[in-house]
Amino acid sequence: MTASFHPPQRTLMGPGPSDVHPRILEAMGRPTIGHLDPLFVGMMDEMKTLLQYAFQTKNAMTMPVSAPGSAGMETCFVNLVEPGDTVIICQNGVFGGRMKENVERCGGIPVMVEDEWGRAVDAGKLEDALKANPDAKLVAFVHAETSTGAISDAKTLVALAHQYDCLTIVDAVTSLGGSELRVDDWGIDAIYSGTQKCLSCTPGLSPVSFSEAALEKIRSRTSKVQSWFLDLNLVMGYWGSGAKRAYHHTAPINALYGLHEALVMLENETLENAWKRHSHHHNALKAGLEAMGLNFIVPASERLSQLNAVSIPESVDDATVRGLLLNDYNLEIGAGLGPMANKVWRIGLMGHACRKENVLKCLSALDDVLGRLDAPVKHGVALAAAQVIYSS
Amino acid sequence: MTASFHPPQRTLMGPGPSDVHPRILEAMGRPTIGHLDPLFVGMMDEMKTLLQYAFQTKNAMTMPVSAPGSAGMETCFVNLVEPGDTVIICQNGVFGGRMKENVERCGGIPVMVEDEWGRAVDAGKLEDALKANPDAKLVAFVHAETSTGAISDAKTLVALAHQYDCLTIVDAVTSLGGSELRVDDWGIDAIYSGTQKCLSCTPGLSPVSFSEAALEKIRSRTSKVQSWFLDLNLVMGYWGSGAKRAYHHTAPINALYGLHEALVMLENETLENAWKRHSHHHNALKAGLEAMGLNFIVPASERLSQLNAVSIPESVDDATVRGLLLNDYNLEIGAGLGPMANKVWRIGLMGHACRKENVLKCLSALDDVLGRLDAPVKHGVALAAAQVIYSS
Repeated sequence: MTASFHPPQRTLMGPGPSDVHPRILEAMGRPTIGHLDPLFVGMMDEMKTLLQYAFQTKNAMTMPVSAPGSAGMETCFVNLVEPGDTVIICQNGVFGGRMKENVERCGGIPVMVEDEWGRAVDAGKLEDALKANPDAKLVAFVHAETSTGAISDAKTLVALAHQYDCLTIVDAVTSLGGSELRVDDWGIDAIYSGTQKCLSCTPGLSPVSFSEAALEKIRSRTSKVQSWFLDLNLVMGYWGSGAKRAYHHTAPINALYGLHEALVMLENETLENAWKRHSHHHNALKAGLEAMGLNFIVPASERLSQLNAVSIPESVDDATVRGLLLNDYNLEIGAGLGPMANKVWRIGLMGHACRKENVLKCLSALDDVLGRLDAPVKHGVALAAAQVIYSS
Repeated sequence: MTASFHPPQRTLMGPGPSDVHPRILEAMGRPTIGHLDPLFVGMMDEMKTLLQYAFQTKNAMTMPVSAPGSAGMETCFVNLVEPGDTVIICQNGVFGGRMKENVERCGGIPVMVEDEWGRAVDAGKLEDALKANPDAKLVAFVHAETSTGAISDAKTLVALAHQYDCLTIVDAVTSLGGSELRVDDWGIDAIYSGTQKCLSCTPGLSPVSFSEAALEKIRSRTSKVQSWFLDLNLVMGYWGSGAKRAYHHTAPINALYGLHEALVMLENETLENAWKRHSHHHNALKAGLEAMGLNFIVPASERLSQLNAVSIPESVDDATVRGLLLNDYNLEIGAGLGPMANKVWRIGLMGHACRKENVLKCLSALDDVLGRLDAPVKHGVALAAAQVIYSS
């Protein structure tokens, strides 16, 4: 007979999932009710308002897709791309490559604008691509690259795309709740995120938002959306306004309880304070890591607070370090993805994981483990460097 | 400021979600760990074995899709249907229509075999269609139609499809854990289910299983699977065997804790006992409903235990009754779908909701509410009729 699964209490400082606040876990364990129950429908309405706040938008089409962030990405592409559409994709990490896959599978024509991994998207290169592709219909880019820790200037990139009559799809999986993000002010047309990063919720849902211009493009499609499950025309019958909701699929009730609670907590903290908190603890972590001699792969001006990618010192084995951190400290940090495998660690400071206790724990654990392995870093200095930030 | 959401404790006797056992809710509230954590990977391996037991299969490709049952359906179709493929769909309720949508969106050619709603799929009609469409590649049907409460003879239908060299896609959303289902013995090639029916888990995941013949068809595709998120070639890199898992998407960790617990409970009860339990309580509910004078829409020999669709008596307003049951008894029963709206109630006896306490509560609540509305049914006789079954 199989036993029940009892996971340990980890400290989650990888690229997500991040530490989930006990209030959110408790909310997820509340009694399941029906997906058409009037009380549930009322909760859905609150959720939409809370998500509009998180995204800083008045878009009516703002809701969580009932699947993880990758499905949120696919929701944007399958609804907005029609066969033959040219889509400019700015790639500066793993997730731009996934966008390309999406465009191709929709029958679209991807035009790749390649930037160095670990750098922000270059607006100049995007403008060149827009000039060279006057028939382009869409521009897609990642606001906060989870694979490298670089943040791009979404406001500028969106404005540029609009100058050339392109709509925009923005990946905000890692930025929502952690970095300044203003969907309406910046004019973003379609955006998707995840719940397991700076919202500190469990993985499994993907908040999305679509502007009126994006909806207009969807309404004027000449072909059906290739995914039934992600077809916004159908999904909105369930998430739409009014008491009457059409059954589409059965919503993941308890996961939505968790997201509701996470968004209530964000509303209480306020977005501005959440952004400041991420920046503050990043500064302390950075001071500690740099004091040890660990180097960020992203230049300071293009660096995310919530995802800190540092080079692994020479002669140090990636998996050994992460294994020791996990086994001795119950501490998870992230490995490098793709070409960055074995070359970088990704240390997350996302949502509830972004707090002083975690910064100090991570620095002292790294100090200990790297010391035991005789790694070429400075020992016994990281904590003091972080404390300087905290006492200033 | 928005308040936390505190749902009431309902009794869920609609078409799903069903009552979730407290053990499962508790499991969902356990600490989140990483989706590549070795302990999590170990739990995934157990989950696959437990799902193989639930499906009665040795298929290596057996796992939960990270999204609700509709996405499980889409996983089967987008992977198995290529543009131009003819797919025979037996429709005897709402969900066959959804299969047709899926086939069309994959560029396939659906051939519909229509049966009366409320009846099992007719094997003779399927055979006629197979003869008339020698180029058909797939046959799809619903094992247990949630919209009507009819069960079809999956074993016979699959054997017939194989005679004509077709693979089979079977919807087992409502049958898994509630009705006899033997994937390997019956030769089913692709099957999908949901977690919120007879597994008594929260909604949000879709267990699927694929035979070697189905995988062979997927491997020999000449076109890419149109969905990146649901592409089995990629998903199996994460759910595949061995210690090394490739990152595909972030799994819904806590939802998987819940499903693991639900499957552990099923293993403890045993499948055969779970099937018997559903049948036993169905008999008691049926005795009570029929004593009141309520009529099942499905003939006895084609009737599901876990979904009881009865005609709404003349002059009785559907919404009024369901509203009173919900408000006065915290009891949810289901409305009719599509052409059956306002004509039938669907009373679920699924998973943890399938127990004596619920049968008696439902009968006495219906007796009270229909009595208050002067409905043309017999009063004060339902409970005694059910008790006859329980004491026999």
